[in-house]
Amino acid sequence: MNGADVLCSTLLASGIDTCFANPGTSEMHFVAALDQRPEMRCVLGLFEGVVTGAADGYARMTDRPAATLLHTGPGLANGLANLHNARRAETAMVNIVGDHASTHLQYDAPLTTDIEGLARPMSHWVGRIGGAASLQRDTEAAIAAARSGAGQVATLILPADAAWSDARFDETAGPILPAAATSAPAEEIEAAARAIHRAGPRCLLLLGGRALRAAPLAEAARIARATGAGVLSETSNARCEHGRGRHAPARVPYLVDVAVERLAGYDTVILIGARAPVAFFGFPDRPHVPTRPDAEILPLAGRGADLAATLAQLREALGIPATAPLPARDDSPVACPEGALDTTTLPAAVAHALPENAILCDESISMGFPFALLAARCAPHDHLQLTGGAIGIGPALAAGAAIACPDRPVLSLQADGSAFYTVQGLWTQAREGLNVVTVILSNRKYQSLYGELHRLGRNAPGTNARAMLDLDNPAVDWPALARGFGVGGSRVERAEDLAAAITRAFRAGGPHLIEAVL
Amino acid sequence: MNGADVLCSTLLASGIDTCFANPGTSEMHFVAALDQRPEMRCVLGLFEGVVTGAADGYARMTDRPAATLLHTGPGLANGLANLHNARRAETAMVNIVGDHASTHLQYDAPLTTDIEGLARPMSHWVGRIGGAASLQRDTEAAIAAARSGAGQVATLILPADAAWSDARFDETAGPILPAAATSAPAEEIEAAARAIHRAGPRCLLLLGGRALRAAPLAEAARIARATGAGVLSETSNARCEHGRGRHAPARVPYLVDVAVERLAGYDTVILIGARAPVAFFGFPDRPHVPTRPDAEILPLAGRGADLAATLAQLREALGIPATAPLPARDDSPVACPEGALDTTTLPAAVAHALPENAILCDESISMGFPFALLAARCAPHDHLQLTGGAIGIGPALAAGAAIACPDRPVLSLQADGSAFYTVQGLWTQAREGLNVVTVILSNRKYQSLYGELHRLGRNAPGTNARAMLDLDNPAVDWPALARGFGVGGSRVERAEDLAAAITRAFRAGGPHLIEAVL
Repeated sequence: MNGADVLCSTLLASGIDTCFANPGTSEMHFVAALDQRPEMRCVLGLFEGVVTGAADGYARMTDRPAATLLHTGPGLANGLANLHNARRAETAMVNIVGDHASTHLQYDAPLTTDIEGLARPMSHWVGRIGGAASLQRDTEAAIAAARSGAGQVATLILPADAAWSDARFDETAGPILPAAATSAPAEEIEAAARAIHRAGPRCLLLLGGRALRAAPLAEAARIARATGAGVLSETSNARCEHGRGRHAPARVPYLVDVAVERLAGYDTVILIGARAPVAFFGFPDRPHVPTRPDAEILPLAGRGADLAATLAQLREALGIPATAPLPARDDSPVACPEGALDTTTLPAAVAHALPENAILCDESISMGFPFALLAARCAPHDHLQLTGGAIGIGPALAAGAAIACPDRPVLSLQADGSAFYTVQGLWTQAREGLNVVTVILSNRKYQSLYGELHRLGRNAPGTNARAMLDLDNPAVDWPALARGFGVGGSRVERAEDLAAAITRAFRAGGPHLIEAVL
Repeated sequence: MNGADVLCSTLLASGIDTCFANPGTSEMHFVAALDQRPEMRCVLGLFEGVVTGAADGYARMTDRPAATLLHTGPGLANGLANLHNARRAETAMVNIVGDHASTHLQYDAPLTTDIEGLARPMSHWVGRIGGAASLQRDTEAAIAAARSGAGQVATLILPADAAWSDARFDETAGPILPAAATSAPAEEIEAAARAIHRAGPRCLLLLGGRALRAAPLAEAARIARATGAGVLSETSNARCEHGRGRHAPARVPYLVDVAVERLAGYDTVILIGARAPVAFFGFPDRPHVPTRPDAEILPLAGRGADLAATLAQLREALGIPATAPLPARDDSPVACPEGALDTTTLPAAVAHALPENAILCDESISMGFPFALLAARCAPHDHLQLTGGAIGIGPALAAGAAIACPDRPVLSLQADGSAFYTVQGLWTQAREGLNVVTVILSNRKYQSLYGELHRLGRNAPGTNARAMLDLDNPAVDWPALARGFGVGGSRVERAEDLAAAITRAFRAGGPHLIEAVL
């Protein structure tokens, strides 16, 4: 048994049985060890951004970490953008990054890099295996870090000599499990209840993290109905149980001016698994935070707390019974639209065709806002967003979510500009036979950046602006690209055809891509 | 005039007139400023690894830096793997990385990251623009850093408020030009000459950097012929003028055991623009350096020195006239092979068909070794390699080289496994109408990693090893993928068809991709 074998055993002992991987020479002992352990599912990504994005999608849907296998500093670097998103989502993940043998580092061979330096900005926790003797302990520390709070990105560096040296697995160590989450302290719940009583409709419950599952959402909705308080979720959420019968709230708007207007009525903001709102970007003469300058921000419970229990206790503290009525809601399904695809018909077609119990991976960018208006009337689904603003997660996130939930349909709503960054994820969808239908929102430009240019008063973009913001000339042929990666592809230009194509693709099963031409 | 305008003016004043870009919201003032300056060529990459790899290819062929435009930490992160390669190549490059307005950083908005922390491991120089007032000075410092020595990766962070604030461009500042390179000191040249006299055929001249241009290569060849000394180049070289009529030497072998054997006869190694050889990876019971333990390593001239002058002076110090005869060499063209494609016929077909004055971007990985045996008999060409071992540069490097040299054909010899990382570079080739012919070496596996697994004695890979090392199931349809990105594609299975397809594609002009099925 060598260190690599012990590493496998340590991961498996704690229930980490899925490894998203893009290996290289320095990880070959680990590859060989994984090859002896069929109970570990190894999933190849052709690019590391697929690996880390898929691990994020997997953990969002299972509430358990996957492992990743990355090849030295450059392999980690390729995965960093989606680690950034995972860090913002507070996703549990154990990244195993191979490095040179410790005795070889001093020679500064071509692939030698400062892996710790690269890992730190996008990881909650970074460690290096000290040697074969400490390998199990070091790995357990990484798993414990990943399972801290709501979840953490833990990056563990594996020197090749720690992997190849003889080692022993301590069977008695037992699994590393997350500590039980606790609800907010009783006195803080009381204080929050008093604030709600005092402010009534001027009070906002801002929800995030696991407060966006169906049960806590219903608690928040009961509180809102009984007290007049408002409820919103963060602008971007890792996972929200949405659609008919759920009580998912609207989100804090992305554009700061719109958010300021939306939040103007609230002088009290209670944070439940959410961070206080901030503007996504700073702009000249624009506020940095969209809440009122005089608003009182009350952080009631962090992401790692038991948010369902916190909300139930808050309801009780407000004297609202568990059987209190829920607010009325519009549960009418979205009718199938007809006509050319545009910012009205396209979201409606998706909302109409979204299957029951789907996972909706949403990297729709400029199309996200019109879709959000219809989400509550979709079939019940889980809504997964881009949490860190690092575009390029969709094909990967969808693959990870589908691996986590093989019995659920996954719809990947994907802006074309963002789709390119981890487009290789389509191949993983084909390789693993995943039930993912990708809808490419094909407007052939960075539409959101044209919006920003417009805000600068530049309404007549010249040669260089168009060179950097247009995606035509040539327009990408998405069905061909999908076929290249082994995924069936089609193209639609009308709303009714899009709805029919989504339904048909899920009926057929397996991955499919639909280019929705706007 | 705002800071972004001054930034454009400062770059242009120093002759930096090409900007490889993937912009985002925080760089929109810079985009707007670039839009006013048509003399700056802006080239979009759909992924940042394309941006940085193209900037590397451009600078290797022009000996001048390009600028890059990257969007905050995640955008930089996506470009880091190819910055690693550029750092190892000592490529001049000025990366402009947009960041939040300095007043917005404290709010830790979703895209806030430690950009300096991310940049440092892959940059020679990292700086942050202090404000609009210091913008010109800060940018000049970055350009000076990029133009230091042989070339450096300089990464300059541009806060959005420095870009949008009023600023003034000092027209009197003048361009930032590289310092003139100097040859090695006379006494060190004398010492090297004495060492060559003493060791004769036990002396190795190890060449790197700009010692691999035609003129210094001829000087080294004259010295070798007159003294019996050996000549080799480093294992991976940024650019080597190769082919018929040139005197490009063989390279230090990649595999450490082969390298040890190849270097066993040398007790004296003179480094001219080269680093002392090290094993690419450390292995159990294998040496870290392939040179003899008793070998004397004489560093004569670093990468930034005038290597042509150094070699000319070394020749003179050895008493060899400038007109001394060159070694005999086999300049016979490689005949067109026939038959199925394999590790013999495929390199021969490429060697046969490589056009005169081509730029050969070589990310052939496991196919690189057989091709190297034929390179000297190809038509004269520039040979560009993967310098840092971070696979995934080919489509990008080829795009950058083609933009640098619009009149030269570019052949991109590309392993399939490595091609995926920056496959989006094909679109840039189409967008810019570049004369790049890509030959995909389609063996549908990570062949070099199977070699490593074999070396571990694992000759019967199981389910998990195959899951991580095979690229079939599904096999990627490369012509479809190319067409998706707007590049014509074809597939060949025989050597004579490959040679004909290369010739035909260059005759037609513009980008084309040929899947060479092994």
